[in-house]
Amino acid sequence: MNTTLRAAIVGSTGYGGVELIRFLIGHPKVQITSVISSSSSGERLSDGFPHLSEIITDTLDAVDIPLIADKADVVFTATPHGVSAKLVPQLLEAGLKVIDLSGDFRLKDGAVYEKWYKHAPADEALLAQAVYGLSEVFGDQVEGNDFVSNPGCYPTATLLGLIPAVSAGWIDPKSIIIDAKSGVSGAGRGTSLTAHYAEINENFKAYKVNKHQHTPEIEQVLSLVAGEPVTVTFTTHLVPMTRGIMSTMYATLNGTHTEAELVELYRQYYEGRRFVRVREAGVWPATKEVYGSNYCDIGFSVDERTGRVTIISVIDNIVKGAAGQAIQNLNIMMGWDETLGLSLTPVYP
Amino acid sequence: MNTTLRAAIVGSTGYGGVELIRFLIGHPKVQITSVISSSSSGERLSDGFPHLSEIITDTLDAVDIPLIADKADVVFTATPHGVSAKLVPQLLEAGLKVIDLSGDFRLKDGAVYEKWYKHAPADEALLAQAVYGLSEVFGDQVEGNDFVSNPGCYPTATLLGLIPAVSAGWIDPKSIIIDAKSGVSGAGRGTSLTAHYAEINENFKAYKVNKHQHTPEIEQVLSLVAGEPVTVTFTTHLVPMTRGIMSTMYATLNGTHTEAELVELYRQYYEGRRFVRVREAGVWPATKEVYGSNYCDIGFSVDERTGRVTIISVIDNIVKGAAGQAIQNLNIMMGWDETLGLSLTPVYP
Amino acid sequence: MNTTLRAAIVGSTGYGGVELIRFLIGHPKVQITSVISSSSSGERLSDGFPHLSEIITDTLDAVDIPLIADKADVVFTATPHGVSAKLVPQLLEAGLKVIDLSGDFRLKDGAVYEKWYKHAPADEALLAQAVYGLSEVFGDQVEGNDFVSNPGCYPTATLLGLIPAVSAGWIDPKSIIIDAKSGVSGAGRGTSLTAHYAEINENFKAYKVNKHQHTPEIEQVLSLVAGEPVTVTFTTHLVPMTRGIMSTMYATLNGTHTEAELVELYRQYYEGRRFVRVREAGVWPATKEVYGSNYCDIGFSVDERTGRVTIISVIDNIVKGAAGQAIQNLNIMMGWDETLGLSLTPVYP
Amino acid sequence: MNTTLRAAIVGSTGYGGVELIRFLIGHPKVQITSVISSSSSGERLSDGFPHLSEIITDTLDAVDIPLIADKADVVFTATPHGVSAKLVPQLLEAGLKVIDLSGDFRLKDGAVYEKWYKHAPADEALLAQAVYGLSEVFGDQVEGNDFVSNPGCYPTATLLGLIPAVSAGWIDPKSIIIDAKSGVSGAGRGTSLTAHYAEINENFKAYKVNKHQHTPEIEQVLSLVAGEPVTVTFTTHLVPMTRGIMSTMYATLNGTHTEAELVELYRQYYEGRRFVRVREAGVWPATKEVYGSNYCDIGFSVDERTGRVTIISVIDNIVKGAAGQAIQNLNIMMGWDETLGLSLTPVYP
Repeated sequence: MNTTLRAAIVGSTGYGGVELIRFLIGHPKVQITSVISSSSSGERLSDGFPHLSEIITDTLDAVDIPLIADKADVVFTATPHGVSAKLVPQLLEAGLKVIDLSGDFRLKDGAVYEKWYKHAPADEALLAQAVYGLSEVFGDQVEGNDFVSNPGCYPTATLLGLIPAVSAGWIDPKSIIIDAKSGVSGAGRGTSLTAHYAEINENFKAYKVNKHQHTPEIEQVLSLVAGEPVTVTFTTHLVPMTRGIMSTMYATLNGTHTEAELVELYRQYYEGRRFVRVREAGVWPATKEVYGSNYCDIGFSVDERTGRVTIISVIDNIVKGAAGQAIQNLNIMMGWDETLGLSLTPVYP
Repeated sequence: MNTTLRAAIVGSTGYGGVELIRFLIGHPKVQITSVISSSSSGERLSDGFPHLSEIITDTLDAVDIPLIADKADVVFTATPHGVSAKLVPQLLEAGLKVIDLSGDFRLKDGAVYEKWYKHAPADEALLAQAVYGLSEVFGDQVEGNDFVSNPGCYPTATLLGLIPAVSAGWIDPKSIIIDAKSGVSGAGRGTSLTAHYAEINENFKAYKVNKHQHTPEIEQVLSLVAGEPVTVTFTTHLVPMTRGIMSTMYATLNGTHTEAELVELYRQYYEGRRFVRVREAGVWPATKEVYGSNYCDIGFSVDERTGRVTIISVIDNIVKGAAGQAIQNLNIMMGWDETLGLSLTPVYP
Repeated sequence: MNTTLRAAIVGSTGYGGVELIRFLIGHPKVQITSVISSSSSGERLSDGFPHLSEIITDTLDAVDIPLIADKADVVFTATPHGVSAKLVPQLLEAGLKVIDLSGDFRLKDGAVYEKWYKHAPADEALLAQAVYGLSEVFGDQVEGNDFVSNPGCYPTATLLGLIPAVSAGWIDPKSIIIDAKSGVSGAGRGTSLTAHYAEINENFKAYKVNKHQHTPEIEQVLSLVAGEPVTVTFTTHLVPMTRGIMSTMYATLNGTHTEAELVELYRQYYEGRRFVRVREAGVWPATKEVYGSNYCDIGFSVDERTGRVTIISVIDNIVKGAAGQAIQNLNIMMGWDETLGLSLTPVYP
Repeated sequence: MNTTLRAAIVGSTGYGGVELIRFLIGHPKVQITSVISSSSSGERLSDGFPHLSEIITDTLDAVDIPLIADKADVVFTATPHGVSAKLVPQLLEAGLKVIDLSGDFRLKDGAVYEKWYKHAPADEALLAQAVYGLSEVFGDQVEGNDFVSNPGCYPTATLLGLIPAVSAGWIDPKSIIIDAKSGVSGAGRGTSLTAHYAEINENFKAYKVNKHQHTPEIEQVLSLVAGEPVTVTFTTHLVPMTRGIMSTMYATLNGTHTEAELVELYRQYYEGRRFVRVREAGVWPATKEVYGSNYCDIGFSVDERTGRVTIISVIDNIVKGAAGQAIQNLNIMMGWDETLGLSLTPVYP
């Protein structure tokens, strides 16, 4: 009996797409059977991405639902916001399992989506159906399901860093301030002045301050965990580097908790989940320590003078913040070990 | 009558020292008469810094008080913490004007210094005598004085970004959270694993979280401005770039204030001070926009949802955060136009 | 008598344009009277370049010949290849002095231009009239002339590194191999995948190998100097940095010459020319040592084993390779000291 | 029957050492049984390299021959020049297989070693015994042998790029000029001003021009292949990036050969060797296309005007230039598929 699952990737010429390919090539139970691009169909994938020369020799397929349904069992949609909302229903209709990497199915409330994304929201029934795939927190809902909405990069780093403390009632949800920093690959492969080398190299800049579309995603989950509406302050910055996100989070402690107690709380919360690594008290992770891997590393600093805790969480935005977690969700969906195909050690230095 | 002031620079082989040289070379009223280094005396400065070839042909002098007194009228001490505390008294004793770039004379309370710097504090009388040279705020105290303690890089960016709002009572001082980021040149020229290229390139890391020695410096000034003791949360990060500091500051607004009102408040506060540029409402500065220059640029984002304001302030850490502000203080001290020698346009890109 | 020369800059929103502005602001005999952009006229220059906030408050003018003739005495055309060929004749016709930073007037032979640039060549008479402004070599032709074609960035670094040796007959012109490397700002401000941050950061790549349009420019000058047709091997690479060009040049020595002799030969050739600095024997310059300045630094390594010399020449591509040399040519054209407005020390680190 | 080979790594706290670990962790036939460091024994490896947290929990062993012999079957010595010469004989004596990553056993002539390395050479008999492990060229000698001297990073990129053409007699060995560029990780983890972030970021510099110790290694192999003594011109540069080497090579063609013919020649030469990828005619590889992987990618440009060919070869200096090729040699040594444990796709972007 052949246990290999056939996977198609829509958006194979984006950074999320090629990263899915990098990991799926080594996945023991998955075979890539179709790499798809609406803009470059008919071309060889490796012509645009020579690092894949002689590794993937496939030609890019067009976005053709019957063809996808014929070739694949599961589809990763690494498509822009607005595109997934239209494409995913057809893929589900065709009986395919879908893991969507866009923001189109993350927010349960279409009105909120429309406000922050400036797009028409997806179908309400599908919004309700989509499971929010923050693997370590909602993995039990992912298992056995056919449709997962993969979390955003910033929310992944931020939520994994906040949920255990919020859940335990150790921090005041109203006090949460999130100062996030991302490498430039998060802006995607589409050229723009923002991602133009000479503009961002040797430069550090803030963007979408208090306006980033990941804000309601973070608030939706924190509200659920806290059992009350949570509103956060959320700032995003661009770092002159390619990969990596750091979320530096500030909150007022409810009562007194030491760093050692926080370490213990988090280690218990993430017990058995290999991709979250909680640093020892007084040690903070750096983005390079998860480079190219699916890890999320977390550290703490409690300041007795102010009664606040600073929580630092890092991920590789393209891996745990996109392609890696998508594959982790596939593994969970299928009832497999969640680490299949993802056991790559961070690249250092 | 020759109006040229003769300047000596102790610590000429550090990044602050060579930056003082870069600006003083073009200063119309100052002449560099002695470049001094305790470790490299006798060598030609340009052998270690070939970018100065044929520009400065001087040999480095040793730290010799009578020689300095003979050669110079004013001394910039770009020396490490602990060294200035011992050196500056001798220079003042010798009748020299002194602008100290170390942290040794910034904190008025020697016990606080000792706690955060882990060094014995400087002489109490001198701590009292030193004027804290945040030029745009304490310039009137600098004028006519002979001894200025130049502010730290993080405090400069942070205080210029907070003081007008704190002073006006528009933000709650108890709510202040400062998330600061610096280029690696801030770590100086001494080699260490922290500043080792392969360790910091493509890496973003936090350090000294809640423990940075600039914390009490920020608190000392904010307390003075607020008229009550202020304790802040202060986090520092290293950005993979050479120059630049961004301070992203969060505070709860007292009442309702729009971004436009904040812009107006700050523009009035800094009226006539060329080196602070307040961006229009909704525009945030990036570090590259002040690269190599003495500017401090500031922008705002008010979030009505949370009642908080995010203030973003950027400087070049080696210029406005060190050498540039030191020269600005010399100008003010001497009663000159504060911009003399400092009118360089930021280098972009 | 007002001795201020009025200058207009066509292409003010490109990197060459804003660099012209950075230097001209400090020029004692020049005033910028019009900043011009075909694509952004009517907008404030500092809206697109916030580093110029409160420094230049001008609105961008359109490309309007009578207006330029009314406002300016000299025009810098920092325009793309193909555009200058059409624009410059009109400016000259209007009685303006012109310094053209494009490649349109560098090659004397229109057919060669067409072959390498894939554009129709400029008017033959104008090609003959244009003086090739390699300041240290052809400055005597620039003086008193009204129309200068400013050299390309690679040719500037390369020719200054080769001409003294070729001129003296110390190297075999047929043996010359040029391995050149440039920072990414050389690709300009137009967005493209080549200059997309995530594609070029942590990447080193060759481009246009044996096909770069600066090849015939180098050959034209070397042939002139050598007194015989010279064909070179020329390779260009992109370095993950913003500014700087290094040209590493290889040639077979005619007879035996030591590094010290080469240093002496070059120092004599460039006697009195401040912007060329010849390093001592066995010391090679790095691009950062000329960062943001108009210097060209040169060093040598003679290998007795092979009978070849390696010559290393560095410039800042936007300064000595574009805007800085253009101003140097203006100075020479006007009979002024060639260093006016250009005496900025390299920014280090 | 247990087929797992037990491996020890001396020099586990260097960049070569941790890269060996990154790959060996995923090797199906090897188990790391001892990580060794002379300077940090007794410490946990992951304390110094937090990216390995929860992946490797081992404490570092001292360099203790009997202990190594007890724990391991094969030893990788990622030790500095001069150290291996003394250590390797003891390891071989103890019956261990050895793959040495230093330069101590690459040169067959001890006098040449002494001249270029300024160290006393290793024992003559061992120099004769060591197999030079350029896998694709000398793999047949590696197979079944117990002692391999792993090639240097620059020689690997350079020799793989030159050998097929030299071997076929298509280029003139006397004309070879090699312009090589390396990321900064090649300088190792020991701190120095050369690898200090602020000194090398935004900087491009040459070093050891005509004096690099890899010169005789390249010449030794080319002489062997050419059947005559070959002397090359070899220049090395530092690129502001962490990983990657590009070797740009110039040579005069013997007769006429097109790029397509060169592609064909090289593809035949490397037939069946997965880690060399020859690009199509007119396409040149970039270092990022092999980032984090064991590939060596090669491209060509023939210039009919000069009769020269430009050959461009790229590797990841820490992988194919060190740890990866070392494991490839182990695989060949053991008679295994040479790709075992090395099938990682390059990390892009």
